[in-house]
Amino acid sequence: VKACGLVVEYNPFHHGHIHHIQSARKVSDADCIVAIMSGSFLQRGEPAIMDKFHRTRAALRAGADLVLELPYIYAVQSSALFAKGAVRSLHEIGVQSLCFGSELGRIDPFIQTVEILQSTQTTYDTIVKAYLDKGLSYPQASERAYHAVGIDDIDMTQPNNILGLSYVQAMKQAQLPIEALTIKRIHNHYHDDAIHTAIASATSIRKELLLNGLTNRAKQSLPKSTAEELLQYAHLANQWHHWEAYFPFLHYKVMTMDTQQLATIHGVDEGLEHRLIQTSKKATSFYDWINRMKTKRYTQTRLQRMFVHILTNTTKTDVHQAISQATVPYLRLLGMNTTGREFLHKQKKQLNVPIVTNRKKNIPASFELDERATNVYYSILTPDRQQSLRKQEFTGPIIINDSTSEAW
Amino acid sequence: VKACGLVVEYNPFHHGHIHHIQSARKVSDADCIVAIMSGSFLQRGEPAIMDKFHRTRAALRAGADLVLELPYIYAVQSSALFAKGAVRSLHEIGVQSLCFGSELGRIDPFIQTVEILQSTQTTYDTIVKAYLDKGLSYPQASERAYHAVGIDDIDMTQPNNILGLSYVQAMKQAQLPIEALTIKRIHNHYHDDAIHTAIASATSIRKELLLNGLTNRAKQSLPKSTAEELLQYAHLANQWHHWEAYFPFLHYKVMTMDTQQLATIHGVDEGLEHRLIQTSKKATSFYDWINRMKTKRYTQTRLQRMFVHILTNTTKTDVHQAISQATVPYLRLLGMNTTGREFLHKQKKQLNVPIVTNRKKNIPASFELDERATNVYYSILTPDRQQSLRKQEFTGPIIINDSTSEAW
Repeated sequence: VKACGLVVEYNPFHHGHIHHIQSARKVSDADCIVAIMSGSFLQRGEPAIMDKFHRTRAALRAGADLVLELPYIYAVQSSALFAKGAVRSLHEIGVQSLCFGSELGRIDPFIQTVEILQSTQTTYDTIVKAYLDKGLSYPQASERAYHAVGIDDIDMTQPNNILGLSYVQAMKQAQLPIEALTIKRIHNHYHDDAIHTAIASATSIRKELLLNGLTNRAKQSLPKSTAEELLQYAHLANQWHHWEAYFPFLHYKVMTMDTQQLATIHGVDEGLEHRLIQTSKKATSFYDWINRMKTKRYTQTRLQRMFVHILTNTTKTDVHQAISQATVPYLRLLGMNTTGREFLHKQKKQLNVPIVTNRKKNIPASFELDERATNVYYSILTPDRQQSLRKQEFTGPIIINDSTSEAW
Repeated sequence: VKACGLVVEYNPFHHGHIHHIQSARKVSDADCIVAIMSGSFLQRGEPAIMDKFHRTRAALRAGADLVLELPYIYAVQSSALFAKGAVRSLHEIGVQSLCFGSELGRIDPFIQTVEILQSTQTTYDTIVKAYLDKGLSYPQASERAYHAVGIDDIDMTQPNNILGLSYVQAMKQAQLPIEALTIKRIHNHYHDDAIHTAIASATSIRKELLLNGLTNRAKQSLPKSTAEELLQYAHLANQWHHWEAYFPFLHYKVMTMDTQQLATIHGVDEGLEHRLIQTSKKATSFYDWINRMKTKRYTQTRLQRMFVHILTNTTKTDVHQAISQATVPYLRLLGMNTTGREFLHKQKKQLNVPIVTNRKKNIPASFELDERATNVYYSILTPDRQQSLRKQEFTGPIIINDSTSEAW
């Protein structure tokens, strides 16, 4: 059985993701599509619009065969660490290829770029550091460094090119026997706010959902299965998730901590703890707080990730312990269909890391961080809704029959 | 100028408190009544129904001359430590007497009892420990120990007798030159829920206020000034305070802590951290949580105090550092009238601890705990209301003219 891995967030699963799955199947010639998906909080430092269980169901119903959860410790991180956790998870489950969407759409420049980077690493690092010291943000500094070492084939201001390069680089660094594949993204620009076509960006879809609900405009960009899961989740949770709902908890948390305690949290670096305390006194909403914290040096994404770690009480020690391991601590199985099940069955004997199917049994210690993140994720709901949704952690993986999957 | 000290919470200030002030003036022959008042959270482990500033104003308008805040580190504690902080504060400001209300109403039995306790301390302690080891609560164990060492003159199941004895004992232990006085409480039993007469218990008044609002029944038991301050506070805060409003924050907080971190919190002793984690999974409200935590050994009051310390992130180290000092770290001046001002003016030169009039200047380090408690206290309000109420910490003490005080 050949398997192809995708690194995803599905926030929410939309038509562009169906295109991704179908193209990946074609270019990889794989029987099984394995998605490694962020859980409750995402790479850009945001809560997912609905929980990981309903996003898994939407993905399975729309064509994914197996869905694994990327551990929190890798999910809410800069692209290098995010990529490291994702490709290692895919390697442990045993995929032969990884297919990512990119603005560029051709794989050779990615591979060549990684080779250039390998031979110019010291120069590249020196240049990045110099620009950081000048007060530039990490994305700005690294973009200039790319040019300086002669990388011009890829537009490194494009977010999916950056992520793609991180996957290829992470695989190369760990010498994983996984073939890198890429397809050209066909939907709107990543950050585009407006829904123009049937393939809209997840950002524009979330905006429409959170502002206006599941309108016809939103439905246009979503498979019927995602629309159904969104409604089902709203029925159970009485809301979808966004940062502002967490603001009271975040603010309360920071107000009960001193600078010393804040500095133990992952992402609170270089004196940000003092800025946090100062700005906490004035902040009236989450995005107001972000604006008060933002500088040239600290991008919104960087700050949002820091805020997620404060919210979940994730310390530098927690992160250090987890990422100092040679590989991922476990594979959390969220769901599968018949194809995914057969693939998993074949792989089971040769796995080097434990498969976690639910919270009940044989839980690796580091799994506590994921559980905590999910508990925090639900904390904005009423106590009874929290309790009933939390129970999903204790039930087995979601299993659906292939026949329920739908084409676009 | 002669001054008499009262140890109070004024939650809220009611007719019984006017009786207390007037009787204290009579029996002490003092010109100035100094009230040492708990701030945001109270001795029984509860948030005050309205903030300390509005409670101060109500007290001044109804006859108190000077109001000081009992530091958080003493306010939310068992009766011995609470009493220690209160009598030391009153000593530092320079009162000649302390007058407390008690169910008994005669001072001699209190003084004799403290003397008996002094000579039988070892026996008493041994008996208390034996009963605690048998699983009895502290109040139950100490009541039996009182009888065992021959203390029968005071009914030690009465809460105000217990507190009164603690004051007399704390003064004796520190050898403070303060005369102890007591008056008989004339209102309902402390825990009585129903409002029967114009002098009702604070508990029954709070119940009426929180369930039905500022009804005529509630007004009957309150001076007009308290009713006005309650309305004014509700106008600013859009609510009065009670535990359930803090439940989401408390629950969120516990869910992001592991047992090790919980065990650093003051009051989380003897493995309570494990019980906390277990019960947090089922608790659907604050009082539901209390009921799940309650045992013969751990009274509701004891647990409520623990929950306040979790909410305010007050560690064992914080408490240890504060109470290991010889006396109170500062006197926080909340408000005064002309009489109080004159008294303070006379005392100022001979004070041994700093007077803190607002958050702005010369703040002793330990004041941070009070500030944090007040920030947490307001955290249930909307951000703009929090900010405007927090500003009171930065303005000077409340000063009112005597003429505004009203008799009952």
